[in-house]
Amino acid sequence: MSIRFPQIALMAMFTLSAFVARAEYLNEEQQQQLHALKETSINSDLSYEILESLTTEVGARMIGTEADKRAIAWSVEKMNDLGFDKVWTEEVTHYQWIRGDVEAKVLAPFPQPVVAIALGESVGTGDDGIQAEVVHFENFDALKAAESGSLDGKIAFVSYRMERHLTGKGYGKAVGARVLGAQVAAEKGAVAFMMRSVGTDDNRAGHTGITRYKDGVERIAAVALSNPDADMLVNQFKRNKPVEFFLKVTAVRNEKVTVKGANVIGEITGSVYPEQIVALGAHLDSWDVGTGAVDDGLGMAMMMAATSHIAKLPQRPKRTIRVILFAGEEVGLLGAKEYVNVHKENLKNHVIGAEWDFGLGRIYEFKTGVGAEALAGAREFAQVLAPLGVSFNPVNNAQGQSDMSLVTKEGVPAARFAPDGSKYFDVHHTMNDTLDKVNPDDLRQNTAVYTMFAYFAAQTEIDFRK
Amino acid sequence: MSIRFPQIALMAMFTLSAFVARAEYLNEEQQQQLHALKETSINSDLSYEILESLTTEVGARMIGTEADKRAIAWSVEKMNDLGFDKVWTEEVTHYQWIRGDVEAKVLAPFPQPVVAIALGESVGTGDDGIQAEVVHFENFDALKAAESGSLDGKIAFVSYRMERHLTGKGYGKAVGARVLGAQVAAEKGAVAFMMRSVGTDDNRAGHTGITRYKDGVERIAAVALSNPDADMLVNQFKRNKPVEFFLKVTAVRNEKVTVKGANVIGEITGSVYPEQIVALGAHLDSWDVGTGAVDDGLGMAMMMAATSHIAKLPQRPKRTIRVILFAGEEVGLLGAKEYVNVHKENLKNHVIGAEWDFGLGRIYEFKTGVGAEALAGAREFAQVLAPLGVSFNPVNNAQGQSDMSLVTKEGVPAARFAPDGSKYFDVHHTMNDTLDKVNPDDLRQNTAVYTMFAYFAAQTEIDFRK
Repeated sequence: MSIRFPQIALMAMFTLSAFVARAEYLNEEQQQQLHALKETSINSDLSYEILESLTTEVGARMIGTEADKRAIAWSVEKMNDLGFDKVWTEEVTHYQWIRGDVEAKVLAPFPQPVVAIALGESVGTGDDGIQAEVVHFENFDALKAAESGSLDGKIAFVSYRMERHLTGKGYGKAVGARVLGAQVAAEKGAVAFMMRSVGTDDNRAGHTGITRYKDGVERIAAVALSNPDADMLVNQFKRNKPVEFFLKVTAVRNEKVTVKGANVIGEITGSVYPEQIVALGAHLDSWDVGTGAVDDGLGMAMMMAATSHIAKLPQRPKRTIRVILFAGEEVGLLGAKEYVNVHKENLKNHVIGAEWDFGLGRIYEFKTGVGAEALAGAREFAQVLAPLGVSFNPVNNAQGQSDMSLVTKEGVPAARFAPDGSKYFDVHHTMNDTLDKVNPDDLRQNTAVYTMFAYFAAQTEIDFRK
Repeated sequence: MSIRFPQIALMAMFTLSAFVARAEYLNEEQQQQLHALKETSINSDLSYEILESLTTEVGARMIGTEADKRAIAWSVEKMNDLGFDKVWTEEVTHYQWIRGDVEAKVLAPFPQPVVAIALGESVGTGDDGIQAEVVHFENFDALKAAESGSLDGKIAFVSYRMERHLTGKGYGKAVGARVLGAQVAAEKGAVAFMMRSVGTDDNRAGHTGITRYKDGVERIAAVALSNPDADMLVNQFKRNKPVEFFLKVTAVRNEKVTVKGANVIGEITGSVYPEQIVALGAHLDSWDVGTGAVDDGLGMAMMMAATSHIAKLPQRPKRTIRVILFAGEEVGLLGAKEYVNVHKENLKNHVIGAEWDFGLGRIYEFKTGVGAEALAGAREFAQVLAPLGVSFNPVNNAQGQSDMSLVTKEGVPAARFAPDGSKYFDVHHTMNDTLDKVNPDDLRQNTAVYTMFAYFAAQTEIDFRK
C-alpha cells in the first residue's frame, strides 16, 4: 500500500437480518454455491502456498529490478498453473532508483550510530555525506511553521509518532511528512530531511515509502529513523545541547534511465457475459527491503487463490473474473495509471472492482460504492459473509483501494473490505515484511471473503452502476 | 548474559506463612525499614532514569571500544552522583575484535539477500567471500553426526529454532550450536558455519553472541541468520535443489592487539561490619549492536538504584554493599575472572552475592544457595517480598548468575531471582536491545526486589555461609 489510504468509514453497523426477510437477489443455487465456496476456501491453504512460493522463489520485487522480472514470470506461470483461461502482461515503465546505503550517526553531544533507511526515490547526499546540526520538530506542522531560511545548512528532523489503530487511521496523520517533508524542509533551507518512521513497531528497521520532490525546490536526501533510534535522538535533544549529526545516503535517482515492469493480468472467462469484467486487484511490486509478503504478496495470493477456487467449479460463472497484478504501485500507482489508459474504452464493461492492499488481519467490514438499486443485492450477499465475522456497512461511499481507486474513479463500482489493521504498520515498508508475519487462519478468512465476493459479483446479473 | 545460563529450578513452591509463625530473624525495625524501602523503590523511576541516561549518553559498549571507555567514565560519575561512598575501577584486558559487515545471499535456486550477523569473535572470510553449496542440518546433533569430510568445501547450516519459555530454558538447548558450531563444522571440512539465530522473535535482526574456536581446528567464519531469513532458506531447501550461497564476513579477530576495559566498583560502607561485603553484580559491557538496554544496562541500573535508595537512609546498614559492574562478560566473564583473581584473599568477607543479567520481566521467584541455618532467615525475608509477586523456592541450590557464578563458585553464598524470561530472547544480543523494550513497571518491581534484598543482606547478622 502506498499513499492512498482508505477514508475511514462511518462505523454505524446494522443487524442485517432485520432488513432482509428473504432472498431476492441470490437464488437457491447461488446461495448453495457460495456456501460451498466458503467451505472450500476456508479449509484451503492455497493462498498461503502461493504466498510461500512467491516469498521463497522471488522475494522483494521493486519495479524494474531483476527480481521484478522474476516476479512477472512467476505470476504468469502461477496463474496458468492455477487454471486461469488467459494470462498476459502489459508493459509499464519507470525511471531507475537504487537504494544504496545509509550511514547515520550522532556526533555530539553523545556519539551513537543511528539506524535509518532512505525514503523511496530519495536522492543521495554525495560521497562525503553531510555533517550538520539537527533541528527537532515534534510534528510536520511545526516544520511547516518554521521560518524560511531558519534551517539553512541544518538537517530537519520530525519526531511525530504514528498511532496504532484498528482501522490503520494513524497512517493518514503520519504519512504527510514522508511524502512532503523533504520539499518543505528544503524550502526552509535544510540540507537533509530525517523523520521518525511511519510505523507502529519498536524494531530497529526503518520504514521506507515514497517521498516527493517539487520543481524549483532543492532536492535533499530524505531518510526515516527506526522508532528506537528516533526515541534515542529525542532523548539526546532533552539534554538541551546542540545535536551534531553525520548523514550519508548513497541512493541514486536516475531519471534518465528507463526501467521496465508490467501489469500481469489473468482471467477466467465468463460463460454468459464474457465481456463483463469483475476486476480483482493487488500489486505486483514491493519495496526492496522485505520479501513483500504482506505488501502486497498477500493480496496477490488472495486474488489468485480466490479465482482458482472458482475456476475449479464445474462451470464458469456468467461474468469474467479478471485479476490485475499492478506494476509500480509503491512508486505512484504506475500500473493503475497505465491500466486505466490502455483499457479506457473498456472500463464501462468493468462491472465492479475490488483490491486487497491492506494485508494482515481479519476482515471485519464490507462496504460498497454502487448504484442505489444494487445496494440491496450487496446487502443480501453480506448476509452470506456474516458468519465469517464480516459486517455490512451500508454507507455506500466506497472507492477502490490503492490501484483500484483509479479504476473506480472512472465510474467503475467498488467493493471494499476492511481488515483489522492494527498490526499492519508494524511491518509495512520494512525489511520485516516477511512470510512469518502472515497468520494462515486470517489469510484463509481473507481468501474466503474474496472468493465469495468474486463469485457473487460474477454470477449475479445485478448492475452495480450508479 | 552470555553462555552461562541458570540451571532450571525445581518448581516446588511452598506457602510460606504456614512455616513461619513469627519473625525470628527480622526485628520490628528491620521489617519497617524493608517496607519503607519497598514503598520508596516501587514508586521511584530512578532505575529507569539511570538506564535512560546510559542508553542515551553511551549506548552500545563492547569491551575495549571507545564507547566502553565512555561507559566506564559514565559509571564512575553516576555512582558518585548517586551517593556511593567509594568508587574505583580495576583494569581488565582483552584482544581486539571488530565486527565488520556481513554480506549473505542465496545465489541458487532462487536468488535472495539474507540478513545475517557475525557471531561474536568470528573470523572473517577474506575480501572475496565464499561461494559454496549449503548443507542443511535440522539441529546441532545432526551436524555433529555428519561424517568427517562430508562437508569439504561446503557451508554448514543449522536451522534449529529456539523455543519460547517462561524460564528462558530454550536458550540452553539452542546455544550450543552458537558456541561450538563453527569448530564442529570445520572438523567435518566446512568452509563456513551458519545457523538460525538463538532467538524467539520474528525480526530480521540476527542474534550475535560468542562463538569459540578450538586449537588445531581451522577457524571458519560463523554467522547467525535472522529467524525470517532462516525460514526462507529452509523453504528453499524444501524444493530439493542444491542451494548455492555467497557469504562475505569482514570481521577482524586480532589477538595480537590488546584492548582495555575495566570493572567499575562502587560501595556504600557498612556502619558496623564495613569489611563484610554484600556483592551486587551486573555487567558493564554489551554487544555492539543494540544499546545494551536489556543486556545488561537494566542490571546496572537496578544495582545502582537499589544501592542509592539505601544510601539515602539516615544510617548506613551494618555491612558494606558493593556494586560490581563487570567488564567483558559477553566475551567470557573476563571481568569476573579478574575480580576473583584480584580479590581472592577477600572473598571470605563476601557474605552473599547476587547478579542481575536476565533482564526484561517481573521477578517471580527467589532462591538461595546458603548454609542450612541461614535458610530460615532467607525464608523469613521472602515473606516481605511476597506482596511483590515473588515466591520463595527453598531448594537452596542457587549459584550466582553470569559473572557472579565465578564468585559463588569460590564459596560465596548466593541469592538468585528469576524473572519472566519469555520475551528476553526476542531482543537478546540484537540491535533491538534498546530502551523501549523495558517496561518501567516491571523495572520498578525488579529494583524494589533488589533494594529490599540488599538491605536485608546488609542489615542482618545472619551468616549465609554453608
